[in-house]
Amino acid sequence: MRRTQRAKRTAGAIATLPFSHVRNPYQPVEVLSADHVEHIHISALKLLATTGMRILDAGARERLAKAGCTVDELTVRFEPEVVEAALASCPSTFTLRARNPEHTLTIGGNHVVFGSVGGPAFVHDLDRGRRAGTDAEQIEYLRLTQALGVLHQEGGGPFEALDLPADTRHLDFYLNAIRHLDKNWQAIALGRERAADAIDMAAISLGTDRDGIVDDPAVMAIINTNTPLTLDIPMAEGLMELAAAGQVVCITPFTLAGAMAPATVAGALVLQHAEVLGVNVLVQQVRRGAPVIYGSFTSNVDMRSGSPAFGTPEYTKAAQASGQLARRVGLPLRSSNVTASNTVDAQSTYESAMSLWGALMGGANLINHSAGWLEGGLTASYEKLIIDAEMLQMFVEYFRPIEVSDDTLALDAIAAVGAGGHFFGSPHTMERYETAFYSPLVSDWRNFETWRDSGSVDATHRANGLWKHLLEDAVDPPLDSAIDEALADFVTRRKKVLLP
Amino acid sequence: MRRTQRAKRTAGAIATLPFSHVRNPYQPVEVLSADHVEHIHISALKLLATTGMRILDAGARERLAKAGCTVDELTVRFEPEVVEAALASCPSTFTLRARNPEHTLTIGGNHVVFGSVGGPAFVHDLDRGRRAGTDAEQIEYLRLTQALGVLHQEGGGPFEALDLPADTRHLDFYLNAIRHLDKNWQAIALGRERAADAIDMAAISLGTDRDGIVDDPAVMAIINTNTPLTLDIPMAEGLMELAAAGQVVCITPFTLAGAMAPATVAGALVLQHAEVLGVNVLVQQVRRGAPVIYGSFTSNVDMRSGSPAFGTPEYTKAAQASGQLARRVGLPLRSSNVTASNTVDAQSTYESAMSLWGALMGGANLINHSAGWLEGGLTASYEKLIIDAEMLQMFVEYFRPIEVSDDTLALDAIAAVGAGGHFFGSPHTMERYETAFYSPLVSDWRNFETWRDSGSVDATHRANGLWKHLLEDAVDPPLDSAIDEALADFVTRRKKVLLP
Repeated sequence: MRRTQRAKRTAGAIATLPFSHVRNPYQPVEVLSADHVEHIHISALKLLATTGMRILDAGARERLAKAGCTVDELTVRFEPEVVEAALASCPSTFTLRARNPEHTLTIGGNHVVFGSVGGPAFVHDLDRGRRAGTDAEQIEYLRLTQALGVLHQEGGGPFEALDLPADTRHLDFYLNAIRHLDKNWQAIALGRERAADAIDMAAISLGTDRDGIVDDPAVMAIINTNTPLTLDIPMAEGLMELAAAGQVVCITPFTLAGAMAPATVAGALVLQHAEVLGVNVLVQQVRRGAPVIYGSFTSNVDMRSGSPAFGTPEYTKAAQASGQLARRVGLPLRSSNVTASNTVDAQSTYESAMSLWGALMGGANLINHSAGWLEGGLTASYEKLIIDAEMLQMFVEYFRPIEVSDDTLALDAIAAVGAGGHFFGSPHTMERYETAFYSPLVSDWRNFETWRDSGSVDATHRANGLWKHLLEDAVDPPLDSAIDEALADFVTRRKKVLLP
Repeated sequence: MRRTQRAKRTAGAIATLPFSHVRNPYQPVEVLSADHVEHIHISALKLLATTGMRILDAGARERLAKAGCTVDELTVRFEPEVVEAALASCPSTFTLRARNPEHTLTIGGNHVVFGSVGGPAFVHDLDRGRRAGTDAEQIEYLRLTQALGVLHQEGGGPFEALDLPADTRHLDFYLNAIRHLDKNWQAIALGRERAADAIDMAAISLGTDRDGIVDDPAVMAIINTNTPLTLDIPMAEGLMELAAAGQVVCITPFTLAGAMAPATVAGALVLQHAEVLGVNVLVQQVRRGAPVIYGSFTSNVDMRSGSPAFGTPEYTKAAQASGQLARRVGLPLRSSNVTASNTVDAQSTYESAMSLWGALMGGANLINHSAGWLEGGLTASYEKLIIDAEMLQMFVEYFRPIEVSDDTLALDAIAAVGAGGHFFGSPHTMERYETAFYSPLVSDWRNFETWRDSGSVDATHRANGLWKHLLEDAVDPPLDSAIDEALADFVTRRKKVLLP
């Protein structure tokens, strides 16, 4: 069954994997001892009880007071029992609907979800250079995200469409995402309105209303704390809107060691853990049992310049430690595929590899920004999208355990070939010819002379050709015309309210 | 102590790590169940007992007969008891001397040794292009290998010096390696003479003779089987010469699934395992207790073209499975850092990353070709050498466990900074300013504008500048002049014999 999901090796076809649900069958790497996990957990509880968090939104503070927290002006302090009680009501695994039911995601356990890049200010490709993006280009990027079967989720807008008004841009993005994708897409939870519109539009796209998704969520958004220990008003509003509607909150502190967090991985982790746990009290107070994801984004700065660095060894260790901390509190883990490189070169992939291996062998359930991220998240790259998709496809194959059976061990075939022979034309090989091994998207395995004589094209330039081919062949998934019309009406109505 | 070994962040200095002994503190990833490991092991024993191996060297067949094997013309069959008895005498951990005693290596346990690329036919750099190498260029490459502290071992000649006569070229390489490195270097075991010369010269370089290293080995070489199930004469000769002198044999079948091995990872693994175990019987018969490394080089072909592929997901899984098989039989594991890319681009590093993570999280003890390999091993690259060194340095940092203590958890510092502050100037940060995080060799973490304004140089071109700087600054390690003279005499004498 899984075997048939491999890319068909049709001559000339692009070897994109079809959509498939991915599980990581291997045990996570543990970079911390059990004692150290407990030390970090206890320290985070202590921090919440003593220093507490600054919660800028008055409504959020009121709810936290009701949850049993101590409120002192903007500062909220959390007793360990309050934190633990909130954790106890979180589901460890849940689903997240897509408008194609086959693309509905499971978050938690050993499930792995790959989301596309979300949030950059700029967009880049080799032909058009680095620039502010437009609505038309955003649609291109979304169509590529749909075409790449290895991507399970759209990441909340690949870049801003700067040709559209700021206050209503989110509506256009949601409509684009629904029209050009039948996969789950992330909402933008910056303020109540943006979160509310996402919930309403996701419900309409599923032919239902808020009641129809309150216990069966279809919307997820990233909620960033303002590290250290601050939750701002727009994020608190977005969070409360999502949680009230039963939708998924991914709490992600940006604990950059040496800047907003201490210059130690352990210090950044304790801050990350405290912020996730504190904010979860608010989520659970709004709606007990609301699904929450433990977001890890701990990295470090370059101590020479203060620039954020990504895909560093510290990042890798922090991602794996975060897996241990998330499992300690029973939450699914979100991590990312990140690099600080300014161009799609060798650095961009060795940093991506460090972050992907950290995330995936740390047991991450959601890899945010898993394809397309460049420049520390300032730019969404067309070529990096394709190259990252190749790296993700390789992980999908890596996650298929080696089949060990008399048939695959092939003792009879080895005996038949005999010492000194070869397996090129053996029946055992011919039976497996089509599907034996992973077929690459970008990698060029031809010999040097053939590669040179066909133009010495490197991986980044091959990726450039590939996204153009994918765009040419892209077909939008069918959308019921009544639903499309209802969505368009919603957007028109809301634009009148927001831009009167 | 380990902390002080980090690169000093002197302005303008190149952030090469000093030489350090590396251990992998994390548990290996297990891609096979214990039952599957046993199934492969038993199948390999069965293969050796039934199909057996073709041993082309008569002397080797005689020795195997003495070990209790059945010899039928060229075919040798191994009963399981004979195989298990040979394994029982192998040391699981041993040392490998370098002429700088501080650079003597430990092979086995959780020790990790990084060797430079060995054996390519060509050499490449951005200035001079792809070409056959010369003796002078080989010396350059060796000096870079010495300068990169992260590299523990020279890999047996980075490329052939084609301006020298084929029959004596190995002597010039050994002399170059001894003069320009104080690290261990690999011998070329193609035939008795080349292995013997390495042993004699290594002994002279240590101020001793063969007796002085017979129980304290200083020479290691790769012995490749001719998969499937064949050991040729030159390799058998090299092996017997090394084993008789108590030196280290790294038995490495080239089990390329779909070509010389079945088109399944399991089939390639059973063949690899059988060949290592069979050849080890010969090693142990020559000298009981001779140190042996389990070499894993299982990869797969591109089924469309028959070209070998490297750094594939199958390669990653095979490397990790090989770790389980090597541990099953109590041998240290050799794996590699490989790519099929023809240029130092994004593909070259994502394939390298797949193979490095496979190898290292598979528990490999020796990473052969860990820096410099390109084009499936046909070319040694100057720029890839530098970029791989960066990837290896990142692993060295990754292998330093997160320090968890009240000091690193920094609760007091977090309380002092308070919610909404930052850690840039805090005393906790200032104390750690110099050594807080990994300092990169190649990676550029500057923001886009700064990077662009300084010429938009990608990682490969930065690596080009770096190797030139390293060569300019390179200082040969001191060598006792009497030893140098004795070596030169040896080479002169041997050249007269080999090229009369």
